[in-house]
Amino acid sequence: GGGRGRPASPPRHRWRRRPAAPSAPSGLLLAAAFVSDAQYNRNIPFKTSPEAVRLYYLYNHWFMRTATYFFIFLNLSLAVFEEPAVYPLPFLATSSVEVLCLLVFFGRLMHFAKITRRNVFWKDTKNICIMVAILLSLTDLAIYGALRIYNIKSVRWSRIVRPIFLVNFAESRQIRRAFRSIRNTLPEITYVFLLFMFSLLMFSLMALKLFGERNLQTAEGLPYFRDYLEIVFDLYVLVTTANSPDVMMPAFDFSSWYALFFIAFVIVNTYIFMSLFLAVVYNNYKKHLKNEIRTLAYMKRRKMIEAFNLLKEEEGTLSVVREAQWKQLVKLVAPDISSSHRELLLRISDDEQKGFIDKKSFVQLADLLNIQVITLKIRSHPLGQWMPRIYKSAASQFLRSVVRHRGFVWTYDVIILINAIFIALDEESPYISYAEWVFLALYIVEILLKLYTYEPRAFFGKNQFWNWFDTLIIFAALTATILNTTLKSTTKYNSQQILDIVFILRVLRLIRIVDSIQRFRVIMNTLINIVPTMLTFGGLTLVVYCIFAIIGMELFHGKIQFFPANSNAPYAMECGNQALKDSLFARGKYCKNNFNNFASSFIVLMELTVVNQWHDILCFVTAQPAKLYFIAFHIVMVIIIVNIFVSFILEAFFVEYSLEKSEVETAIEQKIQELGMGVQEDTLQDEQLLDNMESADNDLEGEGGTKAQPKGLVFKIASKRYRTVDALLQRMFEAEIPLEDEGPSFEEILNMSPGDLTSERAV
Amino acid sequence: GGGRGRPASPPRHRWRRRPAAPSAPSGLLLAAAFVSDAQYNRNIPFKTSPEAVRLYYLYNHWFMRTATYFFIFLNLSLAVFEEPAVYPLPFLATSSVEVLCLLVFFGRLMHFAKITRRNVFWKDTKNICIMVAILLSLTDLAIYGALRIYNIKSVRWSRIVRPIFLVNFAESRQIRRAFRSIRNTLPEITYVFLLFMFSLLMFSLMALKLFGERNLQTAEGLPYFRDYLEIVFDLYVLVTTANSPDVMMPAFDFSSWYALFFIAFVIVNTYIFMSLFLAVVYNNYKKHLKNEIRTLAYMKRRKMIEAFNLLKEEEGTLSVVREAQWKQLVKLVAPDISSSHRELLLRISDDEQKGFIDKKSFVQLADLLNIQVITLKIRSHPLGQWMPRIYKSAASQFLRSVVRHRGFVWTYDVIILINAIFIALDEESPYISYAEWVFLALYIVEILLKLYTYEPRAFFGKNQFWNWFDTLIIFAALTATILNTTLKSTTKYNSQQILDIVFILRVLRLIRIVDSIQRFRVIMNTLINIVPTMLTFGGLTLVVYCIFAIIGMELFHGKIQFFPANSNAPYAMECGNQALKDSLFARGKYCKNNFNNFASSFIVLMELTVVNQWHDILCFVTAQPAKLYFIAFHIVMVIIIVNIFVSFILEAFFVEYSLEKSEVETAIEQKIQELGMGVQEDTLQDEQLLDNMESADNDLEGEGGTKAQPKGLVFKIASKRYRTVDALLQRMFEAEIPLEDEGPSFEEILNMSPGDLTSERAV
Repeated sequence: GGGRGRPASPPRHRWRRRPAAPSAPSGLLLAAAFVSDAQYNRNIPFKTSPEAVRLYYLYNHWFMRTATYFFIFLNLSLAVFEEPAVYPLPFLATSSVEVLCLLVFFGRLMHFAKITRRNVFWKDTKNICIMVAILLSLTDLAIYGALRIYNIKSVRWSRIVRPIFLVNFAESRQIRRAFRSIRNTLPEITYVFLLFMFSLLMFSLMALKLFGERNLQTAEGLPYFRDYLEIVFDLYVLVTTANSPDVMMPAFDFSSWYALFFIAFVIVNTYIFMSLFLAVVYNNYKKHLKNEIRTLAYMKRRKMIEAFNLLKEEEGTLSVVREAQWKQLVKLVAPDISSSHRELLLRISDDEQKGFIDKKSFVQLADLLNIQVITLKIRSHPLGQWMPRIYKSAASQFLRSVVRHRGFVWTYDVIILINAIFIALDEESPYISYAEWVFLALYIVEILLKLYTYEPRAFFGKNQFWNWFDTLIIFAALTATILNTTLKSTTKYNSQQILDIVFILRVLRLIRIVDSIQRFRVIMNTLINIVPTMLTFGGLTLVVYCIFAIIGMELFHGKIQFFPANSNAPYAMECGNQALKDSLFARGKYCKNNFNNFASSFIVLMELTVVNQWHDILCFVTAQPAKLYFIAFHIVMVIIIVNIFVSFILEAFFVEYSLEKSEVETAIEQKIQELGMGVQEDTLQDEQLLDNMESADNDLEGEGGTKAQPKGLVFKIASKRYRTVDALLQRMFEAEIPLEDEGPSFEEILNMSPGDLTSERAV
Repeated sequence: GGGRGRPASPPRHRWRRRPAAPSAPSGLLLAAAFVSDAQYNRNIPFKTSPEAVRLYYLYNHWFMRTATYFFIFLNLSLAVFEEPAVYPLPFLATSSVEVLCLLVFFGRLMHFAKITRRNVFWKDTKNICIMVAILLSLTDLAIYGALRIYNIKSVRWSRIVRPIFLVNFAESRQIRRAFRSIRNTLPEITYVFLLFMFSLLMFSLMALKLFGERNLQTAEGLPYFRDYLEIVFDLYVLVTTANSPDVMMPAFDFSSWYALFFIAFVIVNTYIFMSLFLAVVYNNYKKHLKNEIRTLAYMKRRKMIEAFNLLKEEEGTLSVVREAQWKQLVKLVAPDISSSHRELLLRISDDEQKGFIDKKSFVQLADLLNIQVITLKIRSHPLGQWMPRIYKSAASQFLRSVVRHRGFVWTYDVIILINAIFIALDEESPYISYAEWVFLALYIVEILLKLYTYEPRAFFGKNQFWNWFDTLIIFAALTATILNTTLKSTTKYNSQQILDIVFILRVLRLIRIVDSIQRFRVIMNTLINIVPTMLTFGGLTLVVYCIFAIIGMELFHGKIQFFPANSNAPYAMECGNQALKDSLFARGKYCKNNFNNFASSFIVLMELTVVNQWHDILCFVTAQPAKLYFIAFHIVMVIIIVNIFVSFILEAFFVEYSLEKSEVETAIEQKIQELGMGVQEDTLQDEQLLDNMESADNDLEGEGGTKAQPKGLVFKIASKRYRTVDALLQRMFEAEIPLEDEGPSFEEILNMSPGDLTSERAV
């Protein structure tokens, strides 16, 4: 294609990489702050003074945010080093680290106070929470330290407030959302829970009347269903199914008809009530998610309007932003994008090339900036540039066509299957361990061939999950295998850890076969899409686990001991606790399930989350009230958090599913498509991309070439495969609000109660 | 109010109670068949010949339907009397009953064939299924009987086809729908299941490599994680959480880091994959339900149009049905309704009193007939009529106002609470057993007082669940207590069964307190609404249990024996099976969990549905392949059916919830409201009703009295509280189709694939 009608590319200014450019006029700087806040959905209600805007940029600097996270996790991980410790450190060391962390948190909070409006800052409960937590921690630390000097042992109770920092610092929006969701669900779930408890108490009363005077015995020879409170507890455990069918057997042996009692109990409580809990949690989760997304979308719109109002000038009857202003703004907000990319954004915002951008187009800038752009120029293979004669020779082209052929994938699928069989076989035979080297070599050859065929930067593209996965696994396996062989030949001894890692890596390699089958790939992609949000639940679980682990250690620390198998300690088989003789706990060899340190506590809590055998795990608890600890954990973790997790997966799945059916496209994406500059990422494969590009080129020229297109640039529209649930919901909602609708004002949005949003909610 | 403008009520003809009136003209009879089919959503594609229509009425006679159900359950219950039997009966008895059942089924099928069109009959798989099942049963019975004569033992394999009759007879539409839903879900669930199996196999391979050569032992001293297939099975059990944390302990004791392997396993397989199963099942359930409801609504519309076409006459340019024809039709379809009620229906259908009904109004007749009507005339208290002076005296009115007062309810709530405490106390003291009589007397007084205050027929209204519940419980308790006391005084011995029933009834009485609290009542109503559809799942479960129980009995019959506690039999503690010595099965005293008869099998399958300890329950299975039986049951019951059950509860809850928000009213209900003749059942309480009625009366007369209103009649619009999910969804969908839309024709509807409906599906 010729260069007809294409303008010279604009001169390249060198801009500071930091957007906090003091030389820029303060109005522009403020507008840029609004746009960047909208772009990343940050929702910081910052002050509009130039000083505050500068501090705002500093606050959002990646370094500051990373540092905050670092100190939050440092603070949490102190539990590993404090008494009872996995790796003990002196009190002076841990306490000074804690003071350091608290100072950092305080500094961060002060920084936040500087940039936000005073009334907003003091109305926000999360800021108050952080302050109270810092105060509590310092007080506790001081008291504990003082008492320690006089050798008085006291409880470090303030440790349970540490997760508050994880929840309440502005960066962990998702975790806070999950907590808000829980808080909103509480009233409704409380009623269902009370009804459930009522049902439990009724059934227990029935059980007491039916079985209490039969003189029955459990399999362990203990009295069966005599005491009301014990019956309630046993039946509560039955709801979780953990002691089924044991709890039924004595009554069932006495008379078969009594099985009906337990069947009725399980149907009512386990099946109906537990489903009802899920229904309540899911319903609230869905409702709440929609409200939050709506608020986010309104906030974004409002911020873009604020930015527009700062920059607007009159053009006839219209308020517009001039091209020069707009360009400076974009340079401030996104200093990293190339000038040709910026030119393209301008083309889309000002598609009639009038020299100014109207309000409607301006508002879309935040979304435009979020669309990824790829440059076609760099897409030709580097080898093709360095040694074009060899790379474009017939042999090379043949090789590349072989690699691109379906058969190549199938061949490697077969190799993977053979490898699986070899892995399952015995390792002892030398031939099989040699085979391992052969497979490793084959996989490396595969990666090299693919790199030869496909452009390396495309191959390791941001969203090329499987390529990254393959390469990392193979090279980790190669490194570990070499390391292991070296160790073996020098010290004649296999390192256990390295060997374990090698085994795991070898097996992980096999997962790749899933990606060859279309139907599996769809499911896998859904799962991979879910992963980032699942980390939120990781955070949530971490918070709950931390709190319960710290309480658990205070309550149950040292009650049981773990001794290695060949230990001579007294009562080694009974976990060092004479009372546990002949208990199911000792018989199951559960001694390592204890609250003696932070790591063990976590694993016990994990087992309690899985629910099974939890009544056995807690049988070292002799005091009845301590059982409340376990019931509380069950209610919080299993009834609420696991149900929210399931709700999240259900919702994510449904959104993915509805996406398959309907095309959710924003106005921007439509416009890009109209300009012929969009490429769906799904179709963006190797040569296809080039073909696509060329035809797009031709189209444009066919139309008359009046529109300038920076060569080699296409917009990569976020692929369906890689959209998150959040992004999707936001897009769906944005499609609902008309472009003219400015939405409520900042104050209105901030003061909005969930009810306000519910009332205008679309089902 | 005066009688101004009110026409004399029409002469009361005495009509036959059976609608199969041979004297009616055949066109009318056919139209009535269409209307009644539409009214009950029966979907029988009957022939239009007069003979077929007459047979159609017979086919739907309540007696015929009840008889069919009776024989289906008789046929299923044969398993209780056949070898291995709970109550053994001679082979001749059971086989002749079976032949009788099969003959009835065949007769019913032939009857169905007579009334349906031939091509439709043979295209319907359910008819083919029934025929094949009858043939198979007869063949098997003949072979088994013949071999029996020569004393050769063979297997009664045809018994597993018996549930087919329950599924395939036209009356059990709901169960068939659930099965169709399962069938539609299968392809999608298969892919997820394969991926899940792949993940399981990968983890097992990793476990083999990591733990296989460590020489670890389980708590029972058995080798740990050596054999690949056993690892796969152990980890499958871990997915169901049944052997957590036991399966982890040996590896965890060896090194704490190995816990990470199991945590990863549980997160991926138990949490993510199991949620994914629920998501897939739920999604398909929802989709499928909507499609079915849509088909039903179209069918109803189409049938009403057919009926209209049969009766229509020309009136100017309009096709209409004359009033006389219409009345005859209604008398045929609903012979039981009063003439004033019929008059009211006519008023609604022909609201301008033109003497004919147009198509649009005619089509709504089926829904009109489904609306309950109550007659106000009979609403005044019978005592008020028999002895008005006493009933309307000041003392009587005071008494009634006391009963209506909130305090009356509260007083009885307090009495119930006190009763609960008395029940929990020891029965031995004579004062407490006297107290029981006092409480019983108090409850009876309460019911009598309520009957004195409220009109008895209103008190025992169709939907007055709690009144019915109270009365039944109290009178059953009274009967049982008297019976027990009589037995005790005559034979000096408590009957165990009666005493148990008395205990249960006493506790059930306490449930009533829930209805006093508004929030609980809402949840309880949702639960009560769900009950009818839950019976569908009962049917579904029955089918699956029957099949697995029969297979289980063939496979595992007699492998273990149950001996009473004081038995001297050899290996009584090992369930008569030497191989079970020291097993967890014998230690847990699980001997009664066996497949020795139908009832035991059901209970074992129930325990397997609850999942916990299922690996212990099946440890009497020595042959590895037999484990497949248990895995198959787990997949069918837990992964599919329990998930459908949960989906159903979720959906029911959401529909109930969305109902709270939005008012789903059909055009008919609106019209009734406009006429001032509708009373929402929620507001339909005692005097309120009268007030309401009176004001409705006044309104009408105020308007001019040209409209005749049969005195004392109001339409009772199905209350929100008592709508089923099905009815709700149908209403929602009907609100979507415009009244003019005739929908597809019969043939189109019958040949519709789910895809056709999906494509036009509203999300």
